[in-house]
Amino acid sequence: MNQDIAYNSDSFTVKAYGAKGEKNTTLVEMEVERPMIKDNEVIIDILYAGVCHSDIHQVANDWNNTRYPCVPGHENIGKIVKAGSKVSKFKVGDLVGVGCMIDSCQTCAQCKKDEEQFCTGPHGATMTYNGYFADPDSDFNTYGGYASHIVSTEDFLINIPKALDIKKAAPILCAGVTTYSPLKHWNVKAGDTVAIVGIGGLGHMGVQIAKAMGAKVTAITTSESKRKDALELGADDVIISENEKDMEAAQMKFDFILVTIPEAFDVNPYVNLIAPRGSLVTVGLLGPYEEPTNNMNVAMFARQLGGSFIGGIKETQDVMDFCAKHNIHPEVEMIKIEDVNEAFKKVNQEKVRYRYVIDMKA
Amino acid sequence: MNQDIAYNSDSFTVKAYGAKGEKNTTLVEMEVERPMIKDNEVIIDILYAGVCHSDIHQVANDWNNTRYPCVPGHENIGKIVKAGSKVSKFKVGDLVGVGCMIDSCQTCAQCKKDEEQFCTGPHGATMTYNGYFADPDSDFNTYGGYASHIVSTEDFLINIPKALDIKKAAPILCAGVTTYSPLKHWNVKAGDTVAIVGIGGLGHMGVQIAKAMGAKVTAITTSESKRKDALELGADDVIISENEKDMEAAQMKFDFILVTIPEAFDVNPYVNLIAPRGSLVTVGLLGPYEEPTNNMNVAMFARQLGGSFIGGIKETQDVMDFCAKHNIHPEVEMIKIEDVNEAFKKVNQEKVRYRYVIDMKA
Repeated sequence: MNQDIAYNSDSFTVKAYGAKGEKNTTLVEMEVERPMIKDNEVIIDILYAGVCHSDIHQVANDWNNTRYPCVPGHENIGKIVKAGSKVSKFKVGDLVGVGCMIDSCQTCAQCKKDEEQFCTGPHGATMTYNGYFADPDSDFNTYGGYASHIVSTEDFLINIPKALDIKKAAPILCAGVTTYSPLKHWNVKAGDTVAIVGIGGLGHMGVQIAKAMGAKVTAITTSESKRKDALELGADDVIISENEKDMEAAQMKFDFILVTIPEAFDVNPYVNLIAPRGSLVTVGLLGPYEEPTNNMNVAMFARQLGGSFIGGIKETQDVMDFCAKHNIHPEVEMIKIEDVNEAFKKVNQEKVRYRYVIDMKA
Repeated sequence: MNQDIAYNSDSFTVKAYGAKGEKNTTLVEMEVERPMIKDNEVIIDILYAGVCHSDIHQVANDWNNTRYPCVPGHENIGKIVKAGSKVSKFKVGDLVGVGCMIDSCQTCAQCKKDEEQFCTGPHGATMTYNGYFADPDSDFNTYGGYASHIVSTEDFLINIPKALDIKKAAPILCAGVTTYSPLKHWNVKAGDTVAIVGIGGLGHMGVQIAKAMGAKVTAITTSESKRKDALELGADDVIISENEKDMEAAQMKFDFILVTIPEAFDVNPYVNLIAPRGSLVTVGLLGPYEEPTNNMNVAMFARQLGGSFIGGIKETQDVMDFCAKHNIHPEVEMIKIEDVNEAFKKVNQEKVRYRYVIDMKA
């Protein structure tokens, strides 16, 4: 998606693929207006944009907070084409990543701990799309990377290590950090037994990252067809979750379980797989579980059930560097922007292996 | 309750107060037969027995696992009257406590970590009552401390420090360790903000213990009538949970929340009170929550919801010593064994302040 930007005095217009409204969620080509960049911001010409399940949720207004038009895309890699006057760490021509956030208050306790995703400033973190600019009077919605260009503050830009294939690296910006962050924070270490539940866009990164951390990794999937893939990604073992005998045999086995199922599910069968004083963290589900958790099984072995949400900017850089160091790449299928609606359908049908990346210049 | 034990060759009979069946849960005086003690066991003449909410649940078969006749009582203090030939650490005449367990496999990984409550041996831990003897062929159920005498292996006996008032100390054996254990394992430390939800038998111990650990403690209760008590127990602040404004103002405030509500409840309003990366642990509820947990609010601040169940034997000794050191005593009302059915009713009506202790010699 190429465009020479037409600058006005206080805004500029970019080409994008977005949804016009809740009753019209097919992504269509459109133009969106963006406010002129501030001194600490850059404009990036998008080269690659990953397709995340949450893009589909957001476009469909599954979380009841979507502002339309909605231009998704929070796994973006591109080149800086314009930089504000105070930008010092990057320059025009640099290859950079923009993940889930483009700004935050940077002064609250959470931001100071490099946890901008939990920013408790007046507006919270500014998400890459469907977010709000820091200025509460601004009418501008933020727009993501399914577009010719995107804007970010320089402090939220991610360096792309040379060792990574830039065609494949974009999903590390969300799927990568979303799985890396809980594995780090729950202190997964060499020798730990780890289960990754749900082998999709997130889960296939989780298997690779946990394995690189030295854990003994079991992939748990509904799909026999993913057994071979999971083993190739580095899993030591695979359990098909519908196989009651194997689930029974895995009781109390895992120090840490990362659940990446993107829909409401019953967490109780997985609670039984957690070792005494072990933890389960759910990252895919941003809503209620299907059933009440039975605290009997949680309390009986002092287990913990947590959640985690993306990761901070420093952590996003960390996972990018970690993937470069361990030669971890998302498994991607390259598509054109025109194919994005079809790609959304296939993600919902669990047909993607394992992440679509839009080649914005194709 | 006094009795000279009548010994047979391989068993002996003690007086007890127990429930005869699920349809006949009023506690009545009865005689129960116990197997003769083994070399590593002792017989204890019971002086004081605490009344725990779980006694009521167990007698009523609320957990669908009650064996009748059921003689409750797992907060017991008494004197050793007979010791097996291999008992070396205690002797006849010693004052000791017997808490929730009287034995375990002592060889599994959990037992070796002093977490006998999570024993993964063939029979699990042997609970003080409604438990099973290690020998699977034994017909004997275990019987608790609402009795003239009780039996325990010596390794499960607790020393009662001289600084404690033995009339009041019995509830430390369950209510004490059940609240102490999660506060320790979740690493509550000086300066942390801690909420104790539910100010009853467990909660009133939790407030005192958390305070002695140096935390800033908020008591959360449904009952305005407990505000004064909570402050006297050491709480820095009190929130009445039905006061929406105060609950709203407490959002994200607590590093750690200990929930002692003994019935199914909706955990979601409490999730919002947890600080980013903070934890909530539920100890009173051994069953499902009332509603599915909304993982949106868990994930959004990487919170954790755990459970905890009593504590190990070493930890039970630790909390006993901790209470002695910090002059912490349960608030008790002394009753006679004949009043125990009335006491059960009052516990259910939340009328007890805060623990009944049966004076078995009264």
